[in-house]
Amino acid sequence: MALHDEILEQPAVLQGWLESRMETVREIARTIQERNIEYVFLAARGTSDHAGVYAQYLLGTRNRLPVALAAPSLFTMYDESPRLKNALVIGISQSGQSPDIVSVIAEGRRQGAITLSITNDSESPLAQQAELKLDVQAGPEKAVAATKTYTAELMALAALSVALAGNRQQDVEALARVPGAIETALRLEGEVEQIARKQSDMEQCVVLGRGYNYATAQEWALKLKELAYVFTDVYSTADFQHGPIAILDPGFPVLAVASQGAVFADQLGVLARLRDDYKAELVVISDSPEAVALAHSGLLLPDNLPEWLTPIVNIVPAQLFCYHLTRAKGLDTEKPRTLRKVTLTQ
Amino acid sequence: MALHDEILEQPAVLQGWLESRMETVREIARTIQERNIEYVFLAARGTSDHAGVYAQYLLGTRNRLPVALAAPSLFTMYDESPRLKNALVIGISQSGQSPDIVSVIAEGRRQGAITLSITNDSESPLAQQAELKLDVQAGPEKAVAATKTYTAELMALAALSVALAGNRQQDVEALARVPGAIETALRLEGEVEQIARKQSDMEQCVVLGRGYNYATAQEWALKLKELAYVFTDVYSTADFQHGPIAILDPGFPVLAVASQGAVFADQLGVLARLRDDYKAELVVISDSPEAVALAHSGLLLPDNLPEWLTPIVNIVPAQLFCYHLTRAKGLDTEKPRTLRKVTLTQ
Repeated sequence: MALHDEILEQPAVLQGWLESRMETVREIARTIQERNIEYVFLAARGTSDHAGVYAQYLLGTRNRLPVALAAPSLFTMYDESPRLKNALVIGISQSGQSPDIVSVIAEGRRQGAITLSITNDSESPLAQQAELKLDVQAGPEKAVAATKTYTAELMALAALSVALAGNRQQDVEALARVPGAIETALRLEGEVEQIARKQSDMEQCVVLGRGYNYATAQEWALKLKELAYVFTDVYSTADFQHGPIAILDPGFPVLAVASQGAVFADQLGVLARLRDDYKAELVVISDSPEAVALAHSGLLLPDNLPEWLTPIVNIVPAQLFCYHLTRAKGLDTEKPRTLRKVTLTQ
Repeated sequence: MALHDEILEQPAVLQGWLESRMETVREIARTIQERNIEYVFLAARGTSDHAGVYAQYLLGTRNRLPVALAAPSLFTMYDESPRLKNALVIGISQSGQSPDIVSVIAEGRRQGAITLSITNDSESPLAQQAELKLDVQAGPEKAVAATKTYTAELMALAALSVALAGNRQQDVEALARVPGAIETALRLEGEVEQIARKQSDMEQCVVLGRGYNYATAQEWALKLKELAYVFTDVYSTADFQHGPIAILDPGFPVLAVASQGAVFADQLGVLARLRDDYKAELVVISDSPEAVALAHSGLLLPDNLPEWLTPIVNIVPAQLFCYHLTRAKGLDTEKPRTLRKVTLTQ
């Protein structure tokens, strides 16, 4: 199964990336620092858009750069597009083919902005249009559902953030711990498979995350929809408790990602409320035994990473969950009903 | 019923706003134009966040201003927040109370950025923090679900965009037609009620929109969840066809907003595919007889507004739909299970 193989490849892909690309990332960071960047304008779709959401928190808190997530149709469907002076324009696309993402980079370049592509195909139109190119180097991704290119995109962004912040040693060391942490996460597969089998009649669910791991929740939800045809709604834990929590009946499945860090105490409160007041069926991925103890099905990860790196690891048990849920439902993980590998949105 | 009354009040609220606030809007636009604004940084939650999505398209295409939608938790939960030099920082909140939105404005002001509040309470903490204040003047909103404050927020943004673009006569005239267009939309209530009754067993659905009306789709979906407890997923029509369309079984309810304009041809193609290939149950709000003809239940609006103003009108039949669906389900429109009028997200 290509999907399963590619999930398992992730430690090696990220290890290889760290060993070969750090110098390129530092050069890119130097070029960016020479210009007068006031904000980041980032275009992506689907899974790569979740890498964009990660970048919004990462570059926002660690590099103090505001990140505007582009509405790509502004560039392809409407006559006038935003002025991008003093922006760092980033396009993220696994294939580098999507015309709307390419058009954002092309427009940024036309306006004289600094442009950066993050893609798995260094010969793609996206890479060709961009002034700066960051290859995620994940190797061919054969499965239709993206897994290793997503974690490689996150790693590229994390490394860029570290370089822009001056390559502090503790940050570089933390980056180096990520492939090993994914290796450890993969060892949860037996548990994940059991949980997925227990949930094999799941037809709808809610996925929650906040802060850095809001991206993880979004990516988990997309995979559930694409592979297992589960009707899934995703929320920031903060938004969920004001209003949308209304949809919950007892036993409703709620999947949550809650790593230790700035938003953790808040999330823990919502998880307790979901369990005690709403009788939700909780599946929790966390590096905290306390959060895992609140869940009907908990997946405990090691807690040796700072919060800003946890999204690269947290998505891995979620990928395995989607893989095993799809199989438990008797569906084909390699041939989702309508998903195409390369999307060509105008 | 406060909710129904407030839906019906909208033409009068917007008419009153246009008659009394245009000079204030022009002054605000002049102040903004005197500064060196490079982009907009906009903070909002829930319904007001959908006004932010509208602003992203509106200010992006008509004023060429990139709009970054803030992740408010960056300002309340993490130690470092983005640098906002040369940004116009906008906070939108019906109540003006939400601490996280207030904190974005406060931080913008602390950093010396130009700040603007858009709120229904001119004495609120949000209005007090902001340098520039735009009162949406919708009067007290008693229903827990926001309706008239949403359309008034959109109107305030549309008027600001017109003023920033130099008060072209055709734009000012188009703005003036909005209250009448809402009046006409309200006359569809009989039809809307019939459609809602037909759908009274709806437990889940998808809502689609694109471009300017992506905001409308998001707001329609939120109301469905909050009031009628329908499990609803919302998509840009562009994103939906790559992947998530996989969840559709024949007869699945798909609600769509498709006004004539830049994204219309594209949307029409997706609607035809949804009807013919996926046998979806289509409810469509449009100013085009062609789009309405594709639907099982179509709601035809007059086509006398440019696309950029259609979101202010399109949401009105959607509000009525949610109101009547909630009643058809035997639920209380005034006491949704968990919704609070003022949310206090940290």
